[in-house]
Amino acid sequence: MITTEKALQIILENISILKPKDVPISDSLGLIVAEDVSSEENIPPFDNSAMDGFAVRSKDTIGTSPKNPATLLLRGEALIAGDTPKVKVKEKTAVGIMTGAPIPSGADTVIPVEFCKKLEDRVIVYTHYPANMNIRKAGEDIRRGDKVLERNALIYPADIGVLASLGMEKIKVFSKPIIAILCTGDELVDIKTPLSPGKIRSSNTYSLSAQVKEVGAIPLEYGIIRDNTEEIKEKITDALEKADLIITSGGVSMGEYDLVRNIVTEIGAELKFWKIAQRPGMPMAFWVFEKKPIFGLPGNPVSVMVCFENYIRPSIFKMMNKKFQPRQIIKAKMAHPVKNKKGRVHYLRVIVYKERDELWAKTTGDQGSGILRSMAKANGLLTILAENNFIERGEDVEIRMLKPILTTPIPISIENF
Amino acid sequence: MITTEKALQIILENISILKPKDVPISDSLGLIVAEDVSSEENIPPFDNSAMDGFAVRSKDTIGTSPKNPATLLLRGEALIAGDTPKVKVKEKTAVGIMTGAPIPSGADTVIPVEFCKKLEDRVIVYTHYPANMNIRKAGEDIRRGDKVLERNALIYPADIGVLASLGMEKIKVFSKPIIAILCTGDELVDIKTPLSPGKIRSSNTYSLSAQVKEVGAIPLEYGIIRDNTEEIKEKITDALEKADLIITSGGVSMGEYDLVRNIVTEIGAELKFWKIAQRPGMPMAFWVFEKKPIFGLPGNPVSVMVCFENYIRPSIFKMMNKKFQPRQIIKAKMAHPVKNKKGRVHYLRVIVYKERDELWAKTTGDQGSGILRSMAKANGLLTILAENNFIERGEDVEIRMLKPILTTPIPISIENF
Repeated sequence: MITTEKALQIILENISILKPKDVPISDSLGLIVAEDVSSEENIPPFDNSAMDGFAVRSKDTIGTSPKNPATLLLRGEALIAGDTPKVKVKEKTAVGIMTGAPIPSGADTVIPVEFCKKLEDRVIVYTHYPANMNIRKAGEDIRRGDKVLERNALIYPADIGVLASLGMEKIKVFSKPIIAILCTGDELVDIKTPLSPGKIRSSNTYSLSAQVKEVGAIPLEYGIIRDNTEEIKEKITDALEKADLIITSGGVSMGEYDLVRNIVTEIGAELKFWKIAQRPGMPMAFWVFEKKPIFGLPGNPVSVMVCFENYIRPSIFKMMNKKFQPRQIIKAKMAHPVKNKKGRVHYLRVIVYKERDELWAKTTGDQGSGILRSMAKANGLLTILAENNFIERGEDVEIRMLKPILTTPIPISIENF
Repeated sequence: MITTEKALQIILENISILKPKDVPISDSLGLIVAEDVSSEENIPPFDNSAMDGFAVRSKDTIGTSPKNPATLLLRGEALIAGDTPKVKVKEKTAVGIMTGAPIPSGADTVIPVEFCKKLEDRVIVYTHYPANMNIRKAGEDIRRGDKVLERNALIYPADIGVLASLGMEKIKVFSKPIIAILCTGDELVDIKTPLSPGKIRSSNTYSLSAQVKEVGAIPLEYGIIRDNTEEIKEKITDALEKADLIITSGGVSMGEYDLVRNIVTEIGAELKFWKIAQRPGMPMAFWVFEKKPIFGLPGNPVSVMVCFENYIRPSIFKMMNKKFQPRQIIKAKMAHPVKNKKGRVHYLRVIVYKERDELWAKTTGDQGSGILRSMAKANGLLTILAENNFIERGEDVEIRMLKPILTTPIPISIENF
């Protein structure tokens, strides 16, 4: 039995950052860039108009005023975005131009349509326009060779837009790890099957899969696997090929039917530890097989969720080369006394609520590791250290928040547990 | 031209919460429950063992001690999870039992395997076990009729686990809206096409699509649409059938080629407003067609992203019946003076960074609405109100953060803009 700190340390030492992969830019949101990206183009690629108006020579507008306007001859059709202008703007002429259209040669400024007067074949200008007005210059956004994304940056929507504007269809990232989820147990039936005596419905695939998605990875669900050596071996072997990290639930405690522990060791995986001084989740095991981590979680639904939160969530952050985002820690007062068996860290499911501007915490009912409902009711986890055996009513505690603080009255279902 | 506040007000008045939909529970993470959910079963469905050990009658252990142990006769094979026990525990007998296996009739407590001694056909017990030790009682997690999820609750992983354990395959939620994205313009080419003179690459589909995903909705990409009345009409009609909200980019300003505005009005959509007193994004239009909102954004990449952030992001929260999550607002000092044309709200792209324990903000370069790179470099938006025309160096400003504060030195690319 090792401490929770030691367990996390051993796990993280054995987790590697995934090999970078090219992904379509549309799939890169929220991932980490694996190598510097430089532009091979200018953005915009050519000088173009920022307004609907007229492309003219600035020179021809010098000295004009409302009382002394300039009259410029209109040449050709108005240029629209997408055109390749053949027309040339010569002395005392103008060319109609729409937003985004290339500036025709000869012109050096654009007069917005609302600031001049268009007659049939000419345009009247009332004021001087210096050069480069209302023109977007080639390369003013991005110049060829500019670094547009640095290695280790997190990808946001604007970055994806920039990559698209540069014609980059793919980007090298630390991609989303695939997390295999295998739930073992002869007592389990799937969600569609009516319960028969002695059977319970497997919920671990569903809650683990949701936890995997929440942290931004991809679940690979194997469903329910019978307590059968061949079947378990086959599925774990398959998962080792297809996934980057493997989670099993069930089959790791001390009974003679706890097969997973024996099988994974038999396959040749190296057992790094078995049993952590914690409640829930004591019989958790951790192996590595050819650098792939295998987490052997106990079968109880709360153990599974708490072990994921404490050990697998940080592992996935590391695999994606993402900065770990710890949950928010808040200070609250305990609303009732709590006892703890010394010698193990205890993670209690609590609800944190506001009462007369103070934050209070109370447990959400029976803390048995089979009671998933008390996990669903909780908005935080209270860690009681192994050396503590008692928390008094009113004592200050620190809570790791999994959801927002409750600001409405406590539901009766919790109040009356 | 209307104010930004008025624009948002009109938009939200015209956005309805989507009709609730049944979705598989695996797809419900992060969505809002549309109706109360009550359990039709007990969880666990039967009394079962919380440990690997021996099911016994508490009575038979009374008065035992290490010096005066009780010897109980082992009956039948050990029960495993999934079994339907036929054996009965009678006076002075015990039955082996694994975690999760049903408690056999007659037994009222479970002695963990590590606290007794097993001989071939009997087990030696050294201490008194009161009734109900190490037994998970039927219904102790959830009782038939218990409300397990309330209408308007946000769905977390533990809730999905609870629903699975109750055999519920689907849940009624306010589902993810489908957001159609149509980008118009003859000047646009797609990401795969080499640029030819006069053409630019369309990035708006990509950045909008990423923004849609970031807020938890589903993008429906129509790609690039030519400036052709029939084509635009056809695509918008199709989008009105398939999507819950429509975004167009391009074709809403004053030039004669700005077709979208005319076409949407022609289809019969009601124009709620055109033009907002803001920069970027002034020519934005908003229509409603048979209760479906249509956002006509200008074509410039920054206008598109800022309009999405300000108007479409809150709309999607409302459609999903989710509590709006405003971005974090931080206070910083402006690192340089900023001018503003009075009369319009100006959204400036800024980088907020830490210097000697103070937060400073500076713009990320040219604020032209075509300069997407300055959006990608920014971590926040500074709003300058329409009545302000100047911010001094060192003046306190409030910044809406789109990304974390920069704690490392400012990249040279921003420093030297």
